[in-house]
Amino acid sequence: MDFIKSVLAAVAKEAGSAVLGESYHRFLPQGLSGVVLITGAHLCIHTWPEHGYAAIDIFTHGDAFSPDDAAKYIVERLESKNPAIVELKRGF
Amino acid sequence: MDFIKSVLAAVAKEAGSAVLGESYHRFLPQGLSGVVLITGAHLCIHTWPEHGYAAIDIFTHGDAFSPDDAAKYIVERLESKNPAIVELKRGF
Repeated sequence: MDFIKSVLAAVAKEAGSAVLGESYHRFLPQGLSGVVLITGAHLCIHTWPEHGYAAIDIFTHGDAFSPDDAAKYIVERLESKNPAIVELKRGF
Repeated sequence: MDFIKSVLAAVAKEAGSAVLGESYHRFLPQGLSGVVLITGAHLCIHTWPEHGYAAIDIFTHGDAFSPDDAAKYIVERLESKNPAIVELKRGF
């Protein structure tokens, strides 16, 4: 939990964005979910350690925050061996 | 803010899922962001009232929670005139 929190907090800090709020929950015997609200953005994570899997969302708005850089950083920190990254554009 | 909170809370309740945590932020002069952490799921929203636009994420895991029903409910409650819904499957 502390490790995951530190990774997501570092993403927000690197982006120069303020963390407006966060909520985490730890499941037993393992796994966690977390949501981090950032100015104009959010990060979400759900982990399944028993499967070596995590689902992560990086939502950004505007140019201040690079989702590609955030994804690269998270992949490195989590030592993901097989990252699958999908970019979804939306909006007006 | 109260209205959006009530909509997302109703989605979680309808799904029979516990809300594990939430975080909301109101922007000035308008707009809000919110993240709601649910058991095995999350809801996120960012609104731009000045553009009549909201970006909403519904993340679900397992069968307990129908993202289609949740999307339909949110579209109705927010009276969205032009909803664009994209389903993204992922996982192991």
